[in-house]
Amino acid sequence: MAIITLTSDWGTRDHYIGSVKGAILRQYPEAVIVDITHTLAPFNLNHAAFVIRNFYKSFPPGSIHIIGINEEASIEMPHTLVIHDGHYFIGADNGIFSLIFDEKPEQIIEIDVIQDSNYFTFPGRDVFAKVACHIALGKPVSELGPPKPAVLQKIPLRPVVAGDAIRGAVIYNDHYGNAYTNITEAMFNEVVQKRKFAITFLSRTNRITAISKSFMDVPPGEMLALFATSGHLLIAQRNSKASELLGLRPDVTVTVELE
Amino acid sequence: MAIITLTSDWGTRDHYIGSVKGAILRQYPEAVIVDITHTLAPFNLNHAAFVIRNFYKSFPPGSIHIIGINEEASIEMPHTLVIHDGHYFIGADNGIFSLIFDEKPEQIIEIDVIQDSNYFTFPGRDVFAKVACHIALGKPVSELGPPKPAVLQKIPLRPVVAGDAIRGAVIYNDHYGNAYTNITEAMFNEVVQKRKFAITFLSRTNRITAISKSFMDVPPGEMLALFATSGHLLIAQRNSKASELLGLRPDVTVTVELE
Amino acid sequence: MAIITLTSDWGTRDHYIGSVKGAILRQYPEAVIVDITHTLAPFNLNHAAFVIRNFYKSFPPGSIHIIGINEEASIEMPHTLVIHDGHYFIGADNGIFSLIFDEKPEQIIEIDVIQDSNYFTFPGRDVFAKVACHIALGKPVSELGPPKPAVLQKIPLRPVVAGDAIRGAVIYNDHYGNAYTNITEAMFNEVVQKRKFAITFLSRTNRITAISKSFMDVPPGEMLALFATSGHLLIAQRNSKASELLGLRPDVTVTVELE
Repeated sequence: MAIITLTSDWGTRDHYIGSVKGAILRQYPEAVIVDITHTLAPFNLNHAAFVIRNFYKSFPPGSIHIIGINEEASIEMPHTLVIHDGHYFIGADNGIFSLIFDEKPEQIIEIDVIQDSNYFTFPGRDVFAKVACHIALGKPVSELGPPKPAVLQKIPLRPVVAGDAIRGAVIYNDHYGNAYTNITEAMFNEVVQKRKFAITFLSRTNRITAISKSFMDVPPGEMLALFATSGHLLIAQRNSKASELLGLRPDVTVTVELE
Repeated sequence: MAIITLTSDWGTRDHYIGSVKGAILRQYPEAVIVDITHTLAPFNLNHAAFVIRNFYKSFPPGSIHIIGINEEASIEMPHTLVIHDGHYFIGADNGIFSLIFDEKPEQIIEIDVIQDSNYFTFPGRDVFAKVACHIALGKPVSELGPPKPAVLQKIPLRPVVAGDAIRGAVIYNDHYGNAYTNITEAMFNEVVQKRKFAITFLSRTNRITAISKSFMDVPPGEMLALFATSGHLLIAQRNSKASELLGLRPDVTVTVELE
Repeated sequence: MAIITLTSDWGTRDHYIGSVKGAILRQYPEAVIVDITHTLAPFNLNHAAFVIRNFYKSFPPGSIHIIGINEEASIEMPHTLVIHDGHYFIGADNGIFSLIFDEKPEQIIEIDVIQDSNYFTFPGRDVFAKVACHIALGKPVSELGPPKPAVLQKIPLRPVVAGDAIRGAVIYNDHYGNAYTNITEAMFNEVVQKRKFAITFLSRTNRITAISKSFMDVPPGEMLALFATSGHLLIAQRNSKASELLGLRPDVTVTVELE
């Protein structure tokens, strides 16, 4: 038994999901196939990386994660298997791997498997399912292709820490309209220590001066800041959509300053 | 093998679904995880209760149902396990349980499990998955926390039966635009018996004088009334959206009168 | 272990999906239930048929496919089991089977199973789940009802091949806005052979004169034509939605002409 997760922008109304699941079950009937999402914003690597960073550690080591976004291969962006933290990640090396992992992945393999068709093919079904089942069946990963020295680097937006202030940004809005920033708890603690601070964004009236432990710490409708399990500073509005009501969309600047 | 179902407003494009599924499979790899829906209207307990009432009896006894809506706990609304009809229901006691069950649930346990984190946590992953796997592994439910005398009561909108008439309301629109009312077949039979009746709503021209057995009983485009398997009176328009075309939205009054 | 797939227009936010999955697991706990889609355009048989044609061959023979669209039965459109290519298909004989298969299906059975309820029933839960589990349990399909001589015929839109030209049409837009046409590679090769050609649609400026192997063959934003694994000519725009930007919606004429 092996777990194979699917995270993609394939959408939910076409035949793509069915094709990939069928191909997996045909090659490895014991697969436990787990839908994560198929409604990633099309071609949006930052969205994909945020989701994968935040869910994969919940799964047991040995889990196999298929990444279905911008998955057409080219010479510069070959199909690639990354092994890290005991997990397997299969996708095109389009920069996604550099956005998921902060450090260099432990093992990188350029996938070189024979395809069954001369046609335009759908890599999710024709390559990734095959690679996932190869791993699930316990065959050596070295058979999948040669080692690759590095993954393609995309530079994620990082906060600037300048003296007594952190200048970060919103990187993700979830379904509830909560705004995840790129400011981490480690940075926050280093700068703020035990001193008084203010988190501000967009206008001086948007000002939060405490870190909550729970949404329940503030009355309905009020803004709050807390650290998500991923360690990111999250700005939210209880029972409302901070992304819409406060304008907290990706790339909006969020500042932490000492008072 | 145990079945664990997921009914939530977590949405389909974030990492939340993946986090919960991963946490379940890490603790109990044999779980059969079943997605019911993740697109409940956010914070809408009536929607959640309607869905759960109507699907859970299809599952075999022993099934475990995770309810992911308004799931942050407070002292008044603790995380709670309800056992009823041989099924297990895990959620926050925010009123949802009183909306699902007409009678008092057979067993109620206030969940008191140690969380692994000091952070803001995601109860679906950090509490509900743990409780579900505890049950799935056959461990005693008494270990999960103390008995709770009652669940929080929300008063659902109930029809008024006055002499020869029933005054009810639409409680739910499904995906096809069908309108489920809170009028049950039992009430209907008691008032109407074998006599002539008219079901009306919004305007006197909206008038149905027969109960159908099937959508096929009327021509395309025509209105009909029938009893759903849940026993609720359903008003629909064949091949159309009654919710939109007839304005049959939740809270609209629906009346049954004798002629 | 048997695979049971679900392809439907049931939507994702009601109790319908849960009811069907519960009914399957109650009757056959070992089922591997696979969600294909539940967001088929309501009542749209062409959409349903396109999806099913394109995913089912990825699954291993013996797979059971539940088709949840226009599934209320009538005397003219009875619930029907079709066995073809080693796969089982369960639905109402509303024309869908004639749109999925180019030839007459190998075996057709009119379903005649006793329902447990006198109510308006939901065929997905009350009939199709029962039939699927009957097959999964290895019971004879002849017990499900009498043979049926033919399936209801719907005429799909077919291209016209006239001398040196093919006049076809868009039949499907996927989630990315790619446009699948009803022109097949076989027709194309017969007419074009090795000669020069132009694919045109809507206006003379929309003109493609090569078949690509991959989206990567053209620069971002440019139009291309390629053959999908299903053999259909696909017109797309790299990193854009051809359906929106070029107006390539279903029924738009697409012509292949020799130069």
